Amino acid sequence: MRNLNEHNITDAVVARFADTPNPRVKEIITSLVRHLHAFARETKLTEAEWMEGIKFLTATGQKCDDVRQEFILLSDTIGLSQLVVAQNHSRSAEATEQTVFGPFHIENPPAKKDGEDIALGAPGEPCLCVTQVVDEAGKPVPNCQVDVWQADAEGFYDVQDPTWNRDKMRLRAVFNADAKGELKFWTIKPAAYPIPTDGPVGAMLTMTKRHPMRPGHIHFAIQKPGYDPLITHVFIDNDPYLDSDAVFGVRSSCIGDYVRHEAGTAPDGSKRTQPYYTLNYKFVLAPEIKHA
Amino acid sequence: MRNLNEHNITDAVVARFADTPNPRVKEIITSLVRHLHAFARETKLTEAEWMEGIKFLTATGQKCDDVRQEFILLSDTIGLSQLVVAQNHSRSAEATEQTVFGPFHIENPPAKKDGEDIALGAPGEPCLCVTQVVDEAGKPVPNCQVDVWQADAEGFYDVQDPTWNRDKMRLRAVFNADAKGELKFWTIKPAAYPIPTDGPVGAMLTMTKRHPMRPGHIHFAIQKPGYDPLITHVFIDNDPYLDSDAVFGVRSSCIGDYVRHEAGTAPDGSKRTQPYYTLNYKFVLAPEIKHA
Repeated sequence: MRNLNEHNITDAVVARFADTPNPRVKEIITSLVRHLHAFARETKLTEAEWMEGIKFLTATGQKCDDVRQEFILLSDTIGLSQLVVAQNHSRSAEATEQTVFGPFHIENPPAKKDGEDIALGAPGEPCLCVTQVVDEAGKPVPNCQVDVWQADAEGFYDVQDPTWNRDKMRLRAVFNADAKGELKFWTIKPAAYPIPTDGPVGAMLTMTKRHPMRPGHIHFAIQKPGYDPLITHVFIDNDPYLDSDAVFGVRSSCIGDYVRHEAGTAPDGSKRTQPYYTLNYKFVLAPEIKHA
Repeated sequence: MRNLNEHNITDAVVARFADTPNPRVKEIITSLVRHLHAFARETKLTEAEWMEGIKFLTATGQKCDDVRQEFILLSDTIGLSQLVVAQNHSRSAEATEQTVFGPFHIENPPAKKDGEDIALGAPGEPCLCVTQVVDEAGKPVPNCQVDVWQADAEGFYDVQDPTWNRDKMRLRAVFNADAKGELKFWTIKPAAYPIPTDGPVGAMLTMTKRHPMRPGHIHFAIQKPGYDPLITHVFIDNDPYLDSDAVFGVRSSCIGDYVRHEAGTAPDGSKRTQPYYTLNYKFVLAPEIKHA
């Protein structure tokens, strides 16, 4: 293995991975090597361009911290995340579609009870979410865990506030739906927002004249043993960015009907002195996927 | 662009880059998107595997600092660096071959004069390097800049010492060769060494049962207006790792003849009280590459 050139080096590198004990690791690494080499050959990548790539990846890693995941953002903005999601969750027409997880979830959000408000003063118009979780036959799925997170009406997740700390979590919570799979909670109606543009991914979007906007949405992650975990959004209907989501995540079946109401008695019996919205949404879980 | 699935998402992502002003940036990004997506489809990458990849890339970026470049190390160990080098420097049979730059060069090394010692007490056996720079016709190339860097006989570059600072640079220097293209300097004979294995790249090598060794070598970077800059190594002959260099950089034409001598008068006239080595090596520069 001396004197490798651009034509024979790929096979030599793949051969070097021949002793990899785990066959799946070997399959993934050698496929990645072949595709990355093919990219470099196809573009006849120069050394200066290669160095720009090294710098970009380094800066992307160094932008990451406990509450910022720039590599997920990169994967999202080049459609890799949605591709991986799509190919792992081919579902029946009845089941709710999966979409990207995104970089803003945090572990161990506050546990809340049915009917509680998760907005805690965040800017935006109040919205009562009335949800139910059912199976593909329409039968309620009792007692699922429902994890919710979203941006405020100004487009910011709590973690984007530079003074944020874990005592100030808002617009995120984990609930248990009831025996009928039902759950309601108060929040605010989200708005479209830009993904963070102060890092390498933002520079990439600027360089390619792409907008950074995502249509407004609430994230839901619903788990129940025996069902495929559902990670999805409920998007705002009529949002101007539904057809050009910066992360390619919009599913028509996941667009919610956010209905505006004047002040009065809300469906949960509470008195509202200001206008508010309701969102009624039914999540349909698919059966657990049995992997080979 | 809603409801993208694993089959149609790639074209949708490429279309989103349609307005990229710089045609080369557009070509590179869209080629990379197509190849990365093809990789994810070919392996049917799962979400858990995707997340392992995100974590690996993040850790690789976070391992980088002023004197450690883990992404270059990654590129080197998967043969991408040598591929890029090879396809940008196809040279005549006469010219010295190019090899990888590696992650251990630093900007602005100490300027030294002909005949000086760059080892400054580094462990290893003394070695007098006697070099000349010529063109493809064998004619001396006068007054080139010659940048040299290498590991010591224990396998460490100065920057790998945790207490290293810029006042302690050794085994690296920049010289000007003379009017005949000639340059001699003292150093130590380098030895085979492992690339750094305390980061994500080391974990990758362990997981795939690859050894981290590079055959011993001295790095040379030679510049002169009118010639293609030469970045190469002079490898130790008979090194056990010449056929399995962890970064795929060995060229047969770049293996030097390090000759051992007993104590006595060295070719530069100095008296040696211990055995020492000499390396005589002629570098042949190729003409400058004119890019379209």
